[in-house]
Amino acid sequence: MYSFKNDYSEGAHPRILEAMMNANLEQNEGYGLDSHSLAAAASIRKLADRDDVDVHILVGGTQTNLLAISSVLRPYQAAIAASTGHINVHEAGAIEGTGHKVLALPSPDGKLTPSMIESCLKEHTDEHMVQPKLVYISDSTEIGTIYKKAELEALHHFCRLHDLYLYLDGARLGSAMTCEENDLEISDIAAMTDAFYIGGTKNGALIGEALVIANPLMKENFRYMIKNRGAMLAKGFVAGIQFEELFRDGLFFEMASHENQMAAVLRKGIEELGYPFYSDSPTNQLFPILPNPMIEELEKEFEFYRQYAVDDTHTAIRLVTSWATPEAEVQNFLASLKQLSVR
Amino acid sequence: MYSFKNDYSEGAHPRILEAMMNANLEQNEGYGLDSHSLAAAASIRKLADRDDVDVHILVGGTQTNLLAISSVLRPYQAAIAASTGHINVHEAGAIEGTGHKVLALPSPDGKLTPSMIESCLKEHTDEHMVQPKLVYISDSTEIGTIYKKAELEALHHFCRLHDLYLYLDGARLGSAMTCEENDLEISDIAAMTDAFYIGGTKNGALIGEALVIANPLMKENFRYMIKNRGAMLAKGFVAGIQFEELFRDGLFFEMASHENQMAAVLRKGIEELGYPFYSDSPTNQLFPILPNPMIEELEKEFEFYRQYAVDDTHTAIRLVTSWATPEAEVQNFLASLKQLSVR
Amino acid sequence: MYSFKNDYSEGAHPRILEAMMNANLEQNEGYGLDSHSLAAAASIRKLADRDDVDVHILVGGTQTNLLAISSVLRPYQAAIAASTGHINVHEAGAIEGTGHKVLALPSPDGKLTPSMIESCLKEHTDEHMVQPKLVYISDSTEIGTIYKKAELEALHHFCRLHDLYLYLDGARLGSAMTCEENDLEISDIAAMTDAFYIGGTKNGALIGEALVIANPLMKENFRYMIKNRGAMLAKGFVAGIQFEELFRDGLFFEMASHENQMAAVLRKGIEELGYPFYSDSPTNQLFPILPNPMIEELEKEFEFYRQYAVDDTHTAIRLVTSWATPEAEVQNFLASLKQLSVR
Amino acid sequence: MYSFKNDYSEGAHPRILEAMMNANLEQNEGYGLDSHSLAAAASIRKLADRDDVDVHILVGGTQTNLLAISSVLRPYQAAIAASTGHINVHEAGAIEGTGHKVLALPSPDGKLTPSMIESCLKEHTDEHMVQPKLVYISDSTEIGTIYKKAELEALHHFCRLHDLYLYLDGARLGSAMTCEENDLEISDIAAMTDAFYIGGTKNGALIGEALVIANPLMKENFRYMIKNRGAMLAKGFVAGIQFEELFRDGLFFEMASHENQMAAVLRKGIEELGYPFYSDSPTNQLFPILPNPMIEELEKEFEFYRQYAVDDTHTAIRLVTSWATPEAEVQNFLASLKQLSVR
Repeated sequence: MYSFKNDYSEGAHPRILEAMMNANLEQNEGYGLDSHSLAAAASIRKLADRDDVDVHILVGGTQTNLLAISSVLRPYQAAIAASTGHINVHEAGAIEGTGHKVLALPSPDGKLTPSMIESCLKEHTDEHMVQPKLVYISDSTEIGTIYKKAELEALHHFCRLHDLYLYLDGARLGSAMTCEENDLEISDIAAMTDAFYIGGTKNGALIGEALVIANPLMKENFRYMIKNRGAMLAKGFVAGIQFEELFRDGLFFEMASHENQMAAVLRKGIEELGYPFYSDSPTNQLFPILPNPMIEELEKEFEFYRQYAVDDTHTAIRLVTSWATPEAEVQNFLASLKQLSVR
Repeated sequence: MYSFKNDYSEGAHPRILEAMMNANLEQNEGYGLDSHSLAAAASIRKLADRDDVDVHILVGGTQTNLLAISSVLRPYQAAIAASTGHINVHEAGAIEGTGHKVLALPSPDGKLTPSMIESCLKEHTDEHMVQPKLVYISDSTEIGTIYKKAELEALHHFCRLHDLYLYLDGARLGSAMTCEENDLEISDIAAMTDAFYIGGTKNGALIGEALVIANPLMKENFRYMIKNRGAMLAKGFVAGIQFEELFRDGLFFEMASHENQMAAVLRKGIEELGYPFYSDSPTNQLFPILPNPMIEELEKEFEFYRQYAVDDTHTAIRLVTSWATPEAEVQNFLASLKQLSVR
Repeated sequence: MYSFKNDYSEGAHPRILEAMMNANLEQNEGYGLDSHSLAAAASIRKLADRDDVDVHILVGGTQTNLLAISSVLRPYQAAIAASTGHINVHEAGAIEGTGHKVLALPSPDGKLTPSMIESCLKEHTDEHMVQPKLVYISDSTEIGTIYKKAELEALHHFCRLHDLYLYLDGARLGSAMTCEENDLEISDIAAMTDAFYIGGTKNGALIGEALVIANPLMKENFRYMIKNRGAMLAKGFVAGIQFEELFRDGLFFEMASHENQMAAVLRKGIEELGYPFYSDSPTNQLFPILPNPMIEELEKEFEFYRQYAVDDTHTAIRLVTSWATPEAEVQNFLASLKQLSVR
Repeated sequence: MYSFKNDYSEGAHPRILEAMMNANLEQNEGYGLDSHSLAAAASIRKLADRDDVDVHILVGGTQTNLLAISSVLRPYQAAIAASTGHINVHEAGAIEGTGHKVLALPSPDGKLTPSMIESCLKEHTDEHMVQPKLVYISDSTEIGTIYKKAELEALHHFCRLHDLYLYLDGARLGSAMTCEENDLEISDIAAMTDAFYIGGTKNGALIGEALVIANPLMKENFRYMIKNRGAMLAKGFVAGIQFEELFRDGLFFEMASHENQMAAVLRKGIEELGYPFYSDSPTNQLFPILPNPMIEELEKEFEFYRQYAVDDTHTAIRLVTSWATPEAEVQNFLASLKQLSVR
């Protein structure tokens, strides 16, 4: 049974495994100070077009988010997120676990805007309330949408003006940056945020997320933070080798493009059959709204999540493509959907 | 330049990489619920001779320690450790980061005894002080020593009697359990502790520590704990495959034995040259005390840590052997030492 | 200028000061173990009609809330509150500061119902999300409404059924329990919650909130919790004497009745002038909705908070009466309002 | 039975109660923004000879310590204290509860010196360990000793040089500053520390400790910190009135002088009878070492703590005098001791 449940069901791109094999008997420095991690960081700095950013390769998105956020907030300060934000709903209270409230703002498309944030700031007037201090966004968002350059610029300027940190969760940044609608470069993101991360786990690495920090305050002693939260890998080179390979000659973007192409085929096929989508996603997560009986039939052949109950008889399911998704499986899915639609 | 700095400089045993290659294109369940993680857990349960223990494969010792300890302590409760204990000195305050004091007891050999703990309990008389509630031990310890079965039994009985949790950090459990002096089995440890972990990172895996929980209170909702601390791997199968292989047919113990054999050669050679040791370690960490000028010479050929300044002219260095240490390098080291000794 | 801003602008009822004077040169035990604190606890146990509840006299509502809530929740567990709940908006993230998420549910009247909580439970399905575990309610609520006995019973049964703690914030419990609509006794609350507190600060004491704990798990080592959070008073008898006096012969309820009577006069007068209220409050907090220019005029003579902007031209202000509010000031306010209404 | 257990057994100086009575029916601003708190702060600023320090009146030493320390430390940073330090042994892990390790340094006289701190800094070399960042001292110390001006200067310079915060716990600052050996002024302390507090609870107030902050980083948003930790008093004026009175015309120092005089009589009498002291305390805490049987006899007439078991037959007891200690009781104690000595 083929699974469209997520983009982390398979291992790693063969080139990554090969790089790991080749380096296997090397003696490497521990704790991310090895030559591979340094090379990966150098590649990322080049993409970011900034010599002064710090790069730390971590393991997992929740860990990366909680590290970045708790490194700069003081005890009474809060993070602002869309109510669909990963830190708000899918991290088991990890941010609160570091002592900070997440202020969740309703958003129809999973994105934040300056005016939403402004309303939130206005409600928080004095020391009886938390002080909003960091803005958390995801690109692509949890419902597949992406930020356009103008939108990110607007957030950037707003945050600067109001002395807020801007942090971007890039668990699926690859898919966001290689989709057709995208007009952002890694260098734009590096210029407009205080920190962001480039997700490897959901884009063809075994493990690893590369946190890129531009803000000097967050940079300071960040390795202490990593150790303090139990996030420092003894064999940091295991992640380093992977990111070195991902950014050696564009493998990262190549894999993300494949995800998007597979998603595009799916999207087009579903649209042609007349089904609407829960969100307007140009990336590798699609949320078609289907009749419940049809979903039951599809579940006999494919795995996926039932994401949102839209009404009593319809549900938005989540279909995710990965670097490893074969086009044949996409076509199988569409064929089944077509067949069920004809009945 | 060959490094004796640690046992996590190299990658993984080739069999582990091979297993990862073989499974690479499988679609696996996420978050450690895949068949490999389940098979690894089953193997470990068998070794533990207990069907009822829970097994969670985590990434890194500090993370495992902080998860286990903070899962059962209430805010005012403390962990007791030897002052050399990893949680006391080498985790950047990770335990305190979860809100708990570490009560550090001086110990000449890195081990705790019931009488040490009893003294500590007696000093903590009321609610103005923390309440000692968990005993943290390491096997092998941070200075290479090991617990004998009778010692562990004594701690076990003491802890039961005083309603204390007993937790064993097994970052180097492989080396401890395959050294000549050892008389403990995994099943003994499972029977006598509330939880312990079997370290993979320092014994031939790329990543991974298998936490084994016997105490029902610690078991409860432990996956929530993992997620809450940012420790849940999306691709949990990456660690699962490794532990499946480690415990398929004794590879784990085979690699540990090799470490100990290499250490034994080193130890014997150093002893024969007349140098004393900082601790009486039968495992893969040795702490020979050498004259400082000799250390300087050795550093031209080998990497290792200067661990403890013993007096103005002598230092205990740390030599660690790994699953990958070639005997030739051990002999090279001894040859150099001999040459320097003759001068 | 007379202030209706709150019920904690004045000192304490003269009888309380007198009791403090009388005891001033006694030598009392420290840390709340004195005879006055014990006597106060005994009185409260009698009102609660339970010998087995523990009573701790603390200083301040936020402190009491964070102590009670963090004493029983494990790191991944969350508290459920109405979105207007004090812990959600007016405690500067104190609950999150202890590591726990507050799940805020919209509620038109500031109260929670079993069906609201049920929806929240249904959304929290697995370990990727927090686990809702404690229900926080306030009586009277932050917008002046109260729980009827049947409503509390329903919550009690629901919480038992779903293994949730039920905790009641009684910062203004005096006003709630002495208002006309109330049908609850202290003994009902003690029987139906895991813990609740009786607020002294907002009902005529200088300081002090009496936390009453029925749940054995929360009782255990609670004095350690108090000390650990910096909440243990060396001169605990200062609060003890006050609660002893408050519950010697009904002074607590007498003062609360006065608050309610003054509020009733205000309410009736405002209603007669035709102004609506933001909430249907039978207690000592009233939220009349007035035209903004009228509010500006009133602010020349009286102090109060502008609480909620209802529309562009109207605002709900908050008027609070206290044990010390003279009826003459209430009449002055109504006279001014009448005069402004006639214009 | 007269108690020498502590200096917080009695209520407050009558002048303080009188001031509270006089202000009782005033309507005061809430949360420490009232005129009394402001006046108290102004008096303290004058004593500190600095217009730019912030003053916050808090409730209790542990609360004050945890607020001050956690307001500036980042998650991986630690506080250094003498092993006898209050934060190390008598706060039930409150500092660790905010996430920070306390590095306890053995000290024969309860005081820290630059060389002790330097050793500690040298041991903490990298991100695998906590980063020592704040030095906690007490004056008078937990064993009654005091810092001389030259000693505080040395610590001040050392801390500046090493970029460490210097924080002084002044729970018994009154006694320290009015004892004969003292050569420090409040203004010296304000000039040489980043923050310190002036204890009211242990010097004749009902409640209250005045935290004085000179460091701009600690000042920033400190009222948010107070609220976030549940430490903000609604009726802040209750503490404000007391500190206003304490520093109106020297009442604070007058009461402390009385404590010291009573202690001086005790000390002289005990010395004359030939008993040694555990520490060389010039302040209101004395630790005479007495034979155990004699202690048992004394306990029939007086209350005090058995503090340290010196050997199998002798114990250092703790005798504390307060603002309210009558000389007659001191003479009674000496008479009993004399009688027991003659036997």
